Parts: sequence; structure tokens; C-alpha cells
Amino acid sequence: MSTETPRQSSILDIRVYYEDTDGVGVVYYANYLKFFERGRTEWLRHLGVDQSRLAQRDQRMFVVRSADIKYLKPAKLDDLLAIHTKISRVGHASIDFEQLAMLSGELLCRSNIQVCCVNTKTFRPAAFNGELRTLLEKVQK
Amino acid sequence: MSTETPRQSSILDIRVYYEDTDGVGVVYYANYLKFFERGRTEWLRHLGVDQSRLAQRDQRMFVVRSADIKYLKPAKLDDLLAIHTKISRVGHASIDFEQLAMLSGELLCRSNIQVCCVNTKTFRPAAFNGELRTLLEKVQK
Amino acid sequence: MSTETPRQSSILDIRVYYEDTDGVGVVYYANYLKFFERGRTEWLRHLGVDQSRLAQRDQRMFVVRSADIKYLKPAKLDDLLAIHTKISRVGHASIDFEQLAMLSGELLCRSNIQVCCVNTKTFRPAAFNGELRTLLEKVQK
Amino acid sequence: MSTETPRQSSILDIRVYYEDTDGVGVVYYANYLKFFERGRTEWLRHLGVDQSRLAQRDQRMFVVRSADIKYLKPAKLDDLLAIHTKISRVGHASIDFEQLAMLSGELLCRSNIQVCCVNTKTFRPAAFNGELRTLLEKVQK
Repeated sequence: MSTETPRQSSILDIRVYYEDTDGVGVVYYANYLKFFERGRTEWLRHLGVDQSRLAQRDQRMFVVRSADIKYLKPAKLDDLLAIHTKISRVGHASIDFEQLAMLSGELLCRSNIQVCCVNTKTFRPAAFNGELRTLLEKVQK
Repeated sequence: MSTETPRQSSILDIRVYYEDTDGVGVVYYANYLKFFERGRTEWLRHLGVDQSRLAQRDQRMFVVRSADIKYLKPAKLDDLLAIHTKISRVGHASIDFEQLAMLSGELLCRSNIQVCCVNTKTFRPAAFNGELRTLLEKVQK
Repeated sequence: MSTETPRQSSILDIRVYYEDTDGVGVVYYANYLKFFERGRTEWLRHLGVDQSRLAQRDQRMFVVRSADIKYLKPAKLDDLLAIHTKISRVGHASIDFEQLAMLSGELLCRSNIQVCCVNTKTFRPAAFNGELRTLLEKVQK
Repeated sequence: MSTETPRQSSILDIRVYYEDTDGVGVVYYANYLKFFERGRTEWLRHLGVDQSRLAQRDQRMFVVRSADIKYLKPAKLDDLLAIHTKISRVGHASIDFEQLAMLSGELLCRSNIQVCCVNTKTFRPAAFNGELRTLLEKVQK
């Protein structure tokens, strides 16, 4: 895992393609959840967390437990969105994220998403292991 | 539009296919929003509301303004889900839905989703027109 | 598995929802592959083949090896498509399908898709086991 | 539009996320068509072709007429694919693309895709306008 001080937030640029839009010419509402998941994945990758390895080596994975989303303005084809990802709370086996989709400084969509660390076989909550916990504690300072 | 008394709720069966699952073998979290949108569409169709016609004739369409989702248990490939759709409140230009994804009587996912009626060109809120309002009032009784 | 004589072809009705359309108001070209996969899945289910069980019990699954698709006319929101699925050839470890997307008797999209039976762990071709082979031979008569 | 000499081919890096994988842990076969469409879009953008503007100003858009795809090896979660996009032929109102999905120099998936330039209202073939034709001729040299 990375040795530099991990950041509490990150920004990921996402281009809107035809696949993301629906019949009225705007981004389909479910697709923001894809964008937010890409944002969380890249934030974890920046922290040095490789989800494939986490699953194989530690039998741990993240599942979403709840998502609260507000849709303020529509995004359109070719828009270059900035997905802001920030953790707001770290629990025993869960992380609360606040995530935004911005376009040129304007807020289009915002969400609070809780992910839970679970065992890959049982899907039951599993506390973060030592290395991951240390990382997440560093991030919160 | 239909002359029979419209129901306040409806149930839509949805089969889980490979396209719906993700790399850990369960339904990807964004896809429940697709299932719920299918549920709302079929509920509207049952009411006699044809969204294509609504857009073309009345320049009205529904956009989602907020979604609050709890993920309780994962759905798997080949599962036959029952999507329950019920309106909980009708506003001036909005409808609040309560929607559930059930499997053999067990609750997998539940959501509160607010849709707003907007003008197809401006995306600004537009009050329900007479016919639609009458229908929605009947439903609430 | 079913004891009735299996059919060589099947038809599956699929409704077009917002999720299936793209920014120009027609079904996004990749989504026909979803529809065709649903068609093949239901055809296999009709034959008595449960893909979840096949994977767990026999470590066999189907992967697509090639797809040749012609897009003739666009499908639109609310269209009720009829997906025709027909096998054209059964090999040692592969099945060739001819699949069509029809709307009110008009051909919108047609495809030739080859699926291969592989081992779930190695992804290497694996000959159909006895029961499945017998079924597929019956179908071809 | 750009004044530099346009290239005949381009490479786009695409990360594989959970949304792209299916229940057996590999990229779902329909999703390569999304990746290839992103590749064509970025190639067009590099040429200086803005599809949103093309649609609004010139009532022209590209639709896919045929796709011939070979799936050779599966891509997995977290893979960083290189999508190669190359034109193989320019017709009166069509472009033939040869597109590849590569991983660390290994070919995973290859396709021949024909797109057709159509009128945005009628969906009928429409010859490239002067500016676009000049660009495409330059590219072919």
C-alpha cells in the first residue's frame, strides 16, 4: 500500500457517453450510482486498496448498504463530470461517503452512500483488518 | 385512459439475468433503480398513462428528484423478483413512491423515490394536467 | 429436466424501458445483446437447463465466442419486442444461435451468436455432459 | 475543428469497474460495445468532430449498422484495457471501424463495426457534409 499521506477526498473526471444517456437526452438516473462507484473505487485505489486482492487474500469486499441521492440538474451527452468522493464517517465495518457530481462548478447530483465491509462468502459484516483500519484512521485525521 | 378503478399499488415480476449481476455474483446496486423504474412505468401503464404520448402530446415527462434506497439482502442470478410499487403521496407536480424488491416474501431492497413532472423542453416542474390529476386523485382514495 | 419434447426455437417478449434507450431516443445498440442473452436464457430454461445449477453442479457455463449483428431499424421507448431464438448448429462444445428482434412482424435487428461451453474455473472449452448433449440432440431433430 | 493532421487510429484506456462485470467475474459481453463506442467517440473528438454539435447544427448523427465481434479472452475487474480504434474504410455515408480491446499487449476482443451517418429526424442515410468529408479523406491518406 502507498506510503504517502492518504487524502480524505478525491476527484474523478467522467465523460458522459451515449451509453449513459436515456431517451430524453440526459444521464439516466441509475447511472450516477455507477459514476459514484467508480469514484469510490479510484479513491480506494489511491489509498492503496486493491479490491481484487482484498477479495482474494482477505475474503473481504465492500457492498452498498444504503444510498440517498438528490438529483438537482441533468447531465448531458459529452459533459465532463467531476465526481467528488469524500468519507464522512468510518465505522467498525462500514464507511459513509458523501459524493457529488459537478459540472463546471455546478452541483448536478449529490449522495450519501454507506458501504459495508463483508465476508465474500457469507456476505456478513466483517470488521476491517489491521492494515485497512490503519489506513482509514490516517485518512480521517 | 382506462375506466376501471385504478389501483394504488402494483406488483411486477422481474427475472434476474447475467446483465444484472456483477463480479461478485449478485445484482449490481444501481440495477435496482432500473427495476424500480420498470415498476413505476408498468404502474403508470396500468393507470392508462402512456409516457411516450404524454411527452409528445402534453410535453410532460417524469424525472426522478430523489431516491433513498436500503439494500438488505442480495439478489442472485435467475431469481424472480417481485417489484412492489405504491404511491405514498401526490403533490402539485410530484409523486412519492414506496417501492420494494421482494424474493419469495423476503424483502431484499426498499426505496422511497420522488418523481417530478417536468416540461420536456425546459426540464422545469409542470403541474399535472387535468386528466392525469383526476386519475392520481382517484388512486389515492 | 423437462420430459416434453423440447422446441428448437422460442419467442420472448421484451418491453423497452427508459434504461434501454439512449440520448437519441432509440434502443442503444449494445442493449440488443442483453435482449438476445435473455432470449437464450429463457430458451435454455424451457429446455430444462438451469444455468445456476449447471455452474454449481457441473462447473460448466456458456460464454459468447462471437456475435454478428445487423441493425436494420431502431426500437423505441415502450415498444414490445419479440425476441426469436433458434439454434442453427450444435457442435462438440458450442451452440450457434440465430436471433431476431421483431416489432409487430417487422425485423429490427438480427444476429448470429456462437456460445461455447466452458469450465467455470479455467474458462476452457468443455464438452457438453451427457444429459445436456441428449437434450440438444433432441432439439435438433 | 482541429488543424493538425488527424490520425487514422487512436487508443483509449478504459478501466474495468464492477458495473462492467457479470456474475462470473468477467466483463459482460455487451459491454465491449460500450467500450468500442467510447473509443469511436474519442477518435471523432480527436478529429475535431463534436457529436452534440453535429446533431444540433447539421441534423446528422452516427448509428451502428452492423457489428461483428470475436471474444477471445475475458477481461476482469480492475483491468486497464486499451481500446484501439482504426478506420478501415470510408464510404459515402458510412465508416468502417476495426476496433480491438487489448490488455498488456494481449488481444481480448476484436470487432468490425460499421456506422452510418443518418439524419437525426428521419434516421435515413445522409452523406457526410463538406467539412466532415474533407476530414475523413485526410485521415485515410
